[in-house]
Amino acid sequence: MSKTAITKSTAGQKVFRALDAFKIETPSWGYADTGTRFGKFYQDAAAIDLADKLSDAGHVHALTGCCPTVAVHVLWDFQPGQNPAEVAALAKKHGVEIGSINPNLFQDQIYKYGSFTNADPAIRKAALDHTLYSIELGKKLHSRYVSMWMADGISYPGQASIRARKKRMEDCLAAAHKKLSKDQILLIEYKPFEPYFYATDIADWGMSLLYCKKAGKQARVLVDTGHHYLAQNIEQIVAWLLSENMLGGFHFNDRRYADDDLTLGSIDPYQVFRIFNEIHLHARDTGRYADIAYMIDQSHNDKSKIEATIQTICTAQELYAKAALVDHEKLARHQSVDAQIDAEETLRSAFYTDVRPLLAEWRRKNKLPENPLQAHRESRYEVEAAKERKARRKALGIVQSGSYA
Amino acid sequence: MSKTAITKSTAGQKVFRALDAFKIETPSWGYADTGTRFGKFYQDAAAIDLADKLSDAGHVHALTGCCPTVAVHVLWDFQPGQNPAEVAALAKKHGVEIGSINPNLFQDQIYKYGSFTNADPAIRKAALDHTLYSIELGKKLHSRYVSMWMADGISYPGQASIRARKKRMEDCLAAAHKKLSKDQILLIEYKPFEPYFYATDIADWGMSLLYCKKAGKQARVLVDTGHHYLAQNIEQIVAWLLSENMLGGFHFNDRRYADDDLTLGSIDPYQVFRIFNEIHLHARDTGRYADIAYMIDQSHNDKSKIEATIQTICTAQELYAKAALVDHEKLARHQSVDAQIDAEETLRSAFYTDVRPLLAEWRRKNKLPENPLQAHRESRYEVEAAKERKARRKALGIVQSGSYA
Amino acid sequence: MSKTAITKSTAGQKVFRALDAFKIETPSWGYADTGTRFGKFYQDAAAIDLADKLSDAGHVHALTGCCPTVAVHVLWDFQPGQNPAEVAALAKKHGVEIGSINPNLFQDQIYKYGSFTNADPAIRKAALDHTLYSIELGKKLHSRYVSMWMADGISYPGQASIRARKKRMEDCLAAAHKKLSKDQILLIEYKPFEPYFYATDIADWGMSLLYCKKAGKQARVLVDTGHHYLAQNIEQIVAWLLSENMLGGFHFNDRRYADDDLTLGSIDPYQVFRIFNEIHLHARDTGRYADIAYMIDQSHNDKSKIEATIQTICTAQELYAKAALVDHEKLARHQSVDAQIDAEETLRSAFYTDVRPLLAEWRRKNKLPENPLQAHRESRYEVEAAKERKARRKALGIVQSGSYA
Amino acid sequence: MSKTAITKSTAGQKVFRALDAFKIETPSWGYADTGTRFGKFYQDAAAIDLADKLSDAGHVHALTGCCPTVAVHVLWDFQPGQNPAEVAALAKKHGVEIGSINPNLFQDQIYKYGSFTNADPAIRKAALDHTLYSIELGKKLHSRYVSMWMADGISYPGQASIRARKKRMEDCLAAAHKKLSKDQILLIEYKPFEPYFYATDIADWGMSLLYCKKAGKQARVLVDTGHHYLAQNIEQIVAWLLSENMLGGFHFNDRRYADDDLTLGSIDPYQVFRIFNEIHLHARDTGRYADIAYMIDQSHNDKSKIEATIQTICTAQELYAKAALVDHEKLARHQSVDAQIDAEETLRSAFYTDVRPLLAEWRRKNKLPENPLQAHRESRYEVEAAKERKARRKALGIVQSGSYA
Repeated sequence: MSKTAITKSTAGQKVFRALDAFKIETPSWGYADTGTRFGKFYQDAAAIDLADKLSDAGHVHALTGCCPTVAVHVLWDFQPGQNPAEVAALAKKHGVEIGSINPNLFQDQIYKYGSFTNADPAIRKAALDHTLYSIELGKKLHSRYVSMWMADGISYPGQASIRARKKRMEDCLAAAHKKLSKDQILLIEYKPFEPYFYATDIADWGMSLLYCKKAGKQARVLVDTGHHYLAQNIEQIVAWLLSENMLGGFHFNDRRYADDDLTLGSIDPYQVFRIFNEIHLHARDTGRYADIAYMIDQSHNDKSKIEATIQTICTAQELYAKAALVDHEKLARHQSVDAQIDAEETLRSAFYTDVRPLLAEWRRKNKLPENPLQAHRESRYEVEAAKERKARRKALGIVQSGSYA
Repeated sequence: MSKTAITKSTAGQKVFRALDAFKIETPSWGYADTGTRFGKFYQDAAAIDLADKLSDAGHVHALTGCCPTVAVHVLWDFQPGQNPAEVAALAKKHGVEIGSINPNLFQDQIYKYGSFTNADPAIRKAALDHTLYSIELGKKLHSRYVSMWMADGISYPGQASIRARKKRMEDCLAAAHKKLSKDQILLIEYKPFEPYFYATDIADWGMSLLYCKKAGKQARVLVDTGHHYLAQNIEQIVAWLLSENMLGGFHFNDRRYADDDLTLGSIDPYQVFRIFNEIHLHARDTGRYADIAYMIDQSHNDKSKIEATIQTICTAQELYAKAALVDHEKLARHQSVDAQIDAEETLRSAFYTDVRPLLAEWRRKNKLPENPLQAHRESRYEVEAAKERKARRKALGIVQSGSYA
Repeated sequence: MSKTAITKSTAGQKVFRALDAFKIETPSWGYADTGTRFGKFYQDAAAIDLADKLSDAGHVHALTGCCPTVAVHVLWDFQPGQNPAEVAALAKKHGVEIGSINPNLFQDQIYKYGSFTNADPAIRKAALDHTLYSIELGKKLHSRYVSMWMADGISYPGQASIRARKKRMEDCLAAAHKKLSKDQILLIEYKPFEPYFYATDIADWGMSLLYCKKAGKQARVLVDTGHHYLAQNIEQIVAWLLSENMLGGFHFNDRRYADDDLTLGSIDPYQVFRIFNEIHLHARDTGRYADIAYMIDQSHNDKSKIEATIQTICTAQELYAKAALVDHEKLARHQSVDAQIDAEETLRSAFYTDVRPLLAEWRRKNKLPENPLQAHRESRYEVEAAKERKARRKALGIVQSGSYA
Repeated sequence: MSKTAITKSTAGQKVFRALDAFKIETPSWGYADTGTRFGKFYQDAAAIDLADKLSDAGHVHALTGCCPTVAVHVLWDFQPGQNPAEVAALAKKHGVEIGSINPNLFQDQIYKYGSFTNADPAIRKAALDHTLYSIELGKKLHSRYVSMWMADGISYPGQASIRARKKRMEDCLAAAHKKLSKDQILLIEYKPFEPYFYATDIADWGMSLLYCKKAGKQARVLVDTGHHYLAQNIEQIVAWLLSENMLGGFHFNDRRYADDDLTLGSIDPYQVFRIFNEIHLHARDTGRYADIAYMIDQSHNDKSKIEATIQTICTAQELYAKAALVDHEKLARHQSVDAQIDAEETLRSAFYTDVRPLLAEWRRKNKLPENPLQAHRESRYEVEAAKERKARRKALGIVQSGSYA
């Protein structure tokens, strides 16, 4: 089929509609220096403060047209006593809005043995207070999502009562949920290891789902694509959560071994495609797309942060488009008669279709550069930012450092 | 502490009480020839029919005193039209009773694309009929557990609708649950792969728990120790299921890589100990032991089936005793003040205690041989069985065969 | 670029040359009934005997044009005393030739505790004799490869001396190697588990390589794509083996969890592409393609054996073509200046190119059907085979059976 | 057997001899603040400088009697231009000696794309110069081991040529090897992931061994117990390396999921026991213990660094003693007749023996405290260190900080 034929076709129109509604939130911390426990490789262009992060996010949105919101980490991005309206204005200035609000319950020294799960009620209260503050911030910023990654866990067998910690987590989450406005959604993320190693208090989707159920009606499961056991079938989990109406959102990234925070689809793009396919399938079966927050959560140590973000966005769009291209009616027909190979080939046929021309067309239609990565480079935005930020860092006396031991 | 001191101590008494109540069900299929997909190594002493299996189970129970029941696989152990009372009598003759009833929904050719999840209502009905028949058998045999391992799954992406299969599974399980007597419990097992490879319809404890919740109040999760992702924390899952009052039972075995069906504790005994510790901890916190069916599910290709069964039972008792030896009051004290290393050492101290003298004492007290494996060998039971069964196999024209291709 | 433009382009020509030389051997056992340890789903069209297998292989070769040889399993495919010339003639009749010779050292009851590694010298001798017989067969059939998958291993810690078994394996492999003609190559495969579970005697590529080095100059490592630890980087192993001139061949298949024997690229096609890319890269750097045997080793329980084989072949060709499409000069330039994202995008760009039109063109050029799967169905070969084989099975009194317990 | 009987027995004497020769090196960096990429939990008692580290190491050695040497990280522990004799004197003052010398080739910003594998010859030269400097340091300090952990790797497919990087690594290692004195040993460590994620340049023992072979006769493989794929059989690798005379040493730690750096044996003590058993078995078969450097490499974020170190040492001794207790003659007899279960039980019997009384006896004999952890606490060393170091930190203006983003 020629390029024009595809874009004019029913399938092409379906893809365009899917892309029109596919928004991806970028994270403020994705623009700053981060790394591994062995150290960080610093980048001159890395954001120094929230203004830089919002500027970078605005630049990315201008190039891609699909990243209108920015996730923020309360501890890193807000100053105590700061007027949220200022932050909202700053975001607006850069052409974006504040997206999901992420409390930070892992960095303070008091959280060594847990935040919501801590045996000490005073520490649990501190963690809850920070969460309630984050919820209030969300209300003031008209942000829909409060996104909870609880780092809580234990590193050694016997160290704590798993059931007691579970109970404390349930109580705190329920207390937080009570303070949500009717428009807010509490996202609860799971992770099988790190920064604690023996048992994390929300280790898998089942634990996350049970916590959500006990927290209240506005709690939903957040799926980070890198937070699974090896060989675990993520798209099956996604299908289950959709079926239970409990899928709240995604953190996008990829991995080979642990929680590697690589750019989405860089290691296993077919799996990402299959995840998206479950979402399109669910929409086909229910008549409407599920209400899902698509967010990036990546931490780049060597790739340029802005380029890696653009790469992830383009990959997400391509794989989402491929999944939208699946002939779901044909698929359903093959499935209904156990035509195993035909059903599989229906999926594969879409995956192997080159959708890059379609994406280019969609971008042209939306007055966006056809190749956002190339446009970014031509803009010299990063080169200029590097120059300015290097100078500013020097002026401020900021030393980029941090080592393992 | 001297041997006598231990057995007279509070800790020793606690262990004895724990052992008194610790019953382990052996599986009828564990006495027959089984193997890997690459073939079976045949044993002359392998059971030919149900009478042999019950005889072997009775022998094991006579030696260990803790295996009064035998799990049966309906398809393999019952003849169509057979009077269950005959089977009960046969069991009684061998000093055991029929334990959990296991429907077989994976062997018939109709189940190629699923049983309860099959797209064809006629096949679902056949599977449900077999399950209802199994439930009726259970009633007649006064067996408490109907134990469902659903092999259902798909091997390729796109082959079937994950959500449609989930719905069918829910409906069939609910239909089966309706027919339970008020004393019966429906156990639902999970497994992340094999015999299907891309997605199994009950892949993890979360799926199993959700199915149980929808099936009805008498459904519980069955934890097979070999059915987990690598690095998954089984004792945490056990603690969660206990906390949710949804733990129904165990299938005991061990593994290094996949579902290897090795003797319990042969690869990672400390993990088994930690699982048992969660059970004792839960009993300590709630005042009573949870109602759990302990069952062996192993498939030995090279070890003698009877010896491997005895080895597993003795290992289970030793690790259960070690876990009962944990000073849970001290542990709780250390946990309450985040004395991380002390809490851990409390656990380790019990694990590193040699409980074999305690076990010997408990066996003497119960008029059992101190060393069941040695007693088995001295009984020459297996030698005689091998002779007789070899001759009978010959007389019946049974050829032990079966190869990969 | 239009379809014609691609095929006429340098890149297109490079792909065509690559495809011309890309031969894939299909396995005789892939046409017969195989399954999992829980049973087999039988297919009427499954091959009964070697003639059927060669007929199926010939049919597949006629449709794809790239499968001129058939791997045979000596135990399953040859009758004692049979004249190899007969087998060669039979193959020729079906338009194929006999490819790699696979001794079978795992099925006989004597191999319960190992073949080449067995503590009993008589059993080692039996295993070696069978291997030498296989080598002789290879000479008579002008087959180049003797392919050793040693199932040898142990299931329990302490069961045997790892170093003693290593020594015995080295000696037997060296003894076998001595009998090779100067044209024969001894392939040595590795596998981390199954059918033994605690330790397999050739667990990874490092062990395989050391065995090869000690066996002699004509021994090479065989990489089965399904025989790796989870998260292991297969393409890196391939690059190392190429660098050491020790890569002998591949067994193609795919997997999600263990050794699932799924059709190639069905779970992770990007990984297969990256493996092929290493081969093309090596050819680019050394001026010639490495001498590699590409073989399928799959065991289908639910998919039609012939269709799954065709699917695998077409997928292999597509991914091999995509990898050939990589602009390796551009890649090298980007790599030389650490242009990390540009280098990665050079790879991805080729992977995301739709090569199906190119493949269709290559097939037309070679007078092959553009869509081999569709051509297979239209041929009604499988329908007729099913009918005839079903009847023949009945006439021969063959019952398709085999169960777990 | 009574306590006295054991210590007087042949087995007891064997254990004592084994313990006498079992020295464990502690790492200087193990006494300083380290953590995860999400931050560090700071400890007042954490070492500030090399004097603190050597003091802590001396304290640990005084309590345990088996840790006479301290591994140093050149970049963190040596000042440019510092006289090594001063460092040696400082160590001596604290009752220890400098052990293995660890170059640091991962922290400098120039190593973003590799050190020995870097495409830039100037960076390779810098890395080699630092390594040669480390080798010289080793000579001056009469330290036997230069221990190379190469963090080198790539995070994305296609980013670099795997074979080109391999070649550069080979060349640099060979260049370094040339400068060794005849008493020095070059240890080469492997690691399957982190800090790079797609491919690390020394990913497994096979790669490490090949690098050693090419580097020269004084290069040996270093096995870090936490650097393996999940389910990989570490003791088998150890047995192979022993058989090839290529095992140089260990880095001790434990893990559940990735490279968790937990205290040895805290997750899977039976595996550590099996590793030690291979070493004793090898000694039994060859008549002498292999020449192995036992070193701890752990990074504690929540446990007290000194306590965790003592815990690891005591666990190592207990598991080493248990493994020495194995009746290897009996084991060999059972193995020679494939008495699978008896052989396994011989191993298990030793593992389940409580060796803590034996260890206490050995410590009494060596005028060491019977319970080093308790003695440490009673010494109030850590309490005093915390007080003094906190004050010193304040005086020096050192802020303990470092966050994820």
